Amino acid sequence: MNKSIEFWFDFGSNYSYLNALRIEALAARHGAQVLWRPFLLGPIFKAFGWDTSPFLLQKEKGEYMWRDMARQCRKYGLPWKPPCVFPCSSLLAARVALAAGEAPWLPEYCRRIFLLNFAEDRDLDEPNVAAVLSQLAVPPNVLLEIAKSEAVKLALRERTAQARERRIFGAPTFFAGSEMFWGNDRLEDALQEIA
Amino acid sequence: MNKSIEFWFDFGSNYSYLNALRIEALAARHGAQVLWRPFLLGPIFKAFGWDTSPFLLQKEKGEYMWRDMARQCRKYGLPWKPPCVFPCSSLLAARVALAAGEAPWLPEYCRRIFLLNFAEDRDLDEPNVAAVLSQLAVPPNVLLEIAKSEAVKLALRERTAQARERRIFGAPTFFAGSEMFWGNDRLEDALQEIA
Repeated sequence: MNKSIEFWFDFGSNYSYLNALRIEALAARHGAQVLWRPFLLGPIFKAFGWDTSPFLLQKEKGEYMWRDMARQCRKYGLPWKPPCVFPCSSLLAARVALAAGEAPWLPEYCRRIFLLNFAEDRDLDEPNVAAVLSQLAVPPNVLLEIAKSEAVKLALRERTAQARERRIFGAPTFFAGSEMFWGNDRLEDALQEIA
Repeated sequence: MNKSIEFWFDFGSNYSYLNALRIEALAARHGAQVLWRPFLLGPIFKAFGWDTSPFLLQKEKGEYMWRDMARQCRKYGLPWKPPCVFPCSSLLAARVALAAGEAPWLPEYCRRIFLLNFAEDRDLDEPNVAAVLSQLAVPPNVLLEIAKSEAVKLALRERTAQARERRIFGAPTFFAGSEMFWGNDRLEDALQEIA
């Protein structure tokens, strides 16, 4: 039996961070494989007429989110350092993830990128992304060159277009079979759906 | 020791419905008293520049919400019938709740009003609100007259102004001491905070 859960996320999404670090252990308990699906939230928000994160557009919600994140990280035992720049530019990190395809190092790459942003308050710029690749013993220069290719740019655009087609409106979003679940708070429900 | 949780809600808010029917039993387990705080979301949304519910403004999110509500109600064992009119007009029901003050029948009144809207798909109009009052052996005519008084109209406006001052941006919202929690998914965390 091949059970899987699709995990759609943007590296700049703070609530996706909460999942990225928890999902593999939880999925394993349900005997489910995690399909990591990085995409870009920016174009999704633009389609709603927003030029940035709703946490910036809606000030009260934004203030609350930072408070909520600190509590959630404490609850889950995750490190947390609010990033000075929010949302960060996640484009390069996402292209590298697309360039990785289904490489076995992709999940660990994703976790480390999320930690950079939300536990260390560091930019997802080229030196930092390259450093993560090096830690994983993946040749940074090779991967960065692929990440910058037309093919990968197109693949990321295609991935994001798929997100819109599947009615994704935020991140994280999970698919368990044909059922869609939105938000960190629904990860357990999504896994229950598979079981 | 006097432990309490404030439960801020709008009768038209579907996610508030999920709490209204669960909160007393959960709070009792934590030895906490529930302070029912009806207010109006409409003026809060207007202050954000929205003329209706975000579930109508953001189509994809709205579609998802109906699916999510059906699943959540199944999870909690709550009755569920999607209302034909959404969001309903919750003004009269809210004024009656304000007129009730801290009357012992207020929690049961709130639950029955929520059930009318989300389990029976019935309007919160005067005959239906009066019928709920009758079921609770509260004289409908007396209560409705108070509900329509200038004093109660002002009290509801004041309550909603307080919501804005306290940076409430949606419903349900809970206060456990000075900590604010937003959304049905945070009820357990809010109660944990009190404990």
